[in-house]
Amino acid sequence: MTTVEVWRGAAVESRHRVHVAVVDAGGKVRARSGDVALVAYARSAIKPIQALPVVDDGALEQFAITQQELALCCASHSGEPRHVEAAASILRKIGLGEEALACGPHAPWHAPSARLLREQGQAPTRLHNNCSGKHAGMLALARVHGWPTAGYHRDDHPVQIRMLRELSNWTHVPADDIATAVDGCGVVTFGVPLTSLAGAFARVASGARTGSHAPARVVEAMVRWPEYVGGTDRLCTQLMRMADGRIFAKVGAEGVYCAGIPGAELGVALKVEDGASRAAEPALLGVLRSLALLSDEDMAGLAEWAEPDLLNTRGERVGGIRASVRLEACVD
Amino acid sequence: MTTVEVWRGAAVESRHRVHVAVVDAGGKVRARSGDVALVAYARSAIKPIQALPVVDDGALEQFAITQQELALCCASHSGEPRHVEAAASILRKIGLGEEALACGPHAPWHAPSARLLREQGQAPTRLHNNCSGKHAGMLALARVHGWPTAGYHRDDHPVQIRMLRELSNWTHVPADDIATAVDGCGVVTFGVPLTSLAGAFARVASGARTGSHAPARVVEAMVRWPEYVGGTDRLCTQLMRMADGRIFAKVGAEGVYCAGIPGAELGVALKVEDGASRAAEPALLGVLRSLALLSDEDMAGLAEWAEPDLLNTRGERVGGIRASVRLEACVD
Repeated sequence: MTTVEVWRGAAVESRHRVHVAVVDAGGKVRARSGDVALVAYARSAIKPIQALPVVDDGALEQFAITQQELALCCASHSGEPRHVEAAASILRKIGLGEEALACGPHAPWHAPSARLLREQGQAPTRLHNNCSGKHAGMLALARVHGWPTAGYHRDDHPVQIRMLRELSNWTHVPADDIATAVDGCGVVTFGVPLTSLAGAFARVASGARTGSHAPARVVEAMVRWPEYVGGTDRLCTQLMRMADGRIFAKVGAEGVYCAGIPGAELGVALKVEDGASRAAEPALLGVLRSLALLSDEDMAGLAEWAEPDLLNTRGERVGGIRASVRLEACVD
Repeated sequence: MTTVEVWRGAAVESRHRVHVAVVDAGGKVRARSGDVALVAYARSAIKPIQALPVVDDGALEQFAITQQELALCCASHSGEPRHVEAAASILRKIGLGEEALACGPHAPWHAPSARLLREQGQAPTRLHNNCSGKHAGMLALARVHGWPTAGYHRDDHPVQIRMLRELSNWTHVPADDIATAVDGCGVVTFGVPLTSLAGAFARVASGARTGSHAPARVVEAMVRWPEYVGGTDRLCTQLMRMADGRIFAKVGAEGVYCAGIPGAELGVALKVEDGASRAAEPALLGVLRSLALLSDEDMAGLAEWAEPDLLNTRGERVGGIRASVRLEACVD
């Protein structure tokens, strides 16, 4: 079992269990830990896959959407000015305003941006929602097809029917077998086994490697503009910056993390059983290290996420978090 | 195994494992779930026990500390004006200022109080720290004995040596076998098996029932002034208000919850394995319901904590949290 331990003083205080699937583009499980058949809502981790139809159906060309804006479609962004501007820019290009977004407003995750907003006496808008790029992309998809934009977040709208089909294509799970629920931002979220989720990332990675149109565009946007996929001091951003094109990665709520490795045509999907984000980050890095996709030097550069310190209200280091990865290789 | 499930749509999204010990004043385990020998840092859950020496050693009389102020010594308070005033009042009575507190400042947990502070352009002080009452109590203890107040939070200071002895007395764990580490507020925190922690609460409950001086004073202060032990919309406060003297309860960080039942001379201690607070609250209420210490009507009145809803950024209910308690009765 792969676990993430939260220690304090000389003892482990809390322990997270993590399920991990490493799958190739053929759908073969190459390494595993825990219950790889676990059905997990992928949450924001599948935004890169939700961006594929935006590319495939011609929205980039029709609306002159930039690479940075495409990266934002794959993002759980921190609500920094560049993110808000990119989301607003997509909306301008498709002739819509902020009110077209179905996601609710929330304060920027980036504390200085949240503080600035507060000091200016401004309330957070829907553009600040970490999912505003994905929503803007979905609206662009509706515009390309001439579908109504109202209700684009609901499961019976053509946009979400298209998303479900896309998910089914990449995960190889029949659409009828995909669990659905409502995500934090109001759109449909999809539940599939971890192996299927990892397989989807492996296929996107493979597509990016072999130059398949939509996967290549999406992965290129993510790895070239990682600051649009997360933000300042965010793991997705720092990891992709460090990996320099070797890895694309996306976090999801409730302890989900996915990554694709184009060079090896592999996908990684993990779920912290209890949903803790604090465990998902060290777990992902531990898994990538186990797979020799990150070096010890890389890990040291990402120590803030690989082995974060726990500080108390006095600023003293009183504990920390560390992953204990036990991947079982699956040989032929 | 007792679990707390976080569901979304038709599926369970995340799952927390919970270890529970229900122990009587004689130290006998009366009901259990999971690993009751698990050593857990009790964190803030043992504040009621840390308040006992303050009473025993005469600080209430010497400094005219009120019941509300004693309740605050047992609190993880929300930093509301009444809490800040009570902490400041204890300090005034013992001739010290805010700077004597070792806990670091943090914004009040009570959102309107935090907002008010911000709007007034004021920074949070150490008095706003949820532990400021406990710290003020420890300083009162130092004053009673004429010990130096500087460094009262460190493990080699007479205050903390006294606390360790007190913990040992109530938990029946030899002082040398109690794990120690540094808590979020900078003082020593103590790790003991769940059974020992529950036993300590049972003994305090028993003491309160039979009129033993310090337990009776501490429990009376908590159940009479529960708004000083937590705050507005806090479970400790609401539960004690509803139970009307039948239960005293105290939450701790990292998924710990303890309760004492004077009438039955029982103690309950639980630890969410992964440290999630969101699971500790439904778990505690589920355990108390299982023990027939809360009625269905009580549970309905506490539904906000027993079965909280998950809302998305649009304010829609998209899921919820529910406990599945499996207590194994331990008969003679």
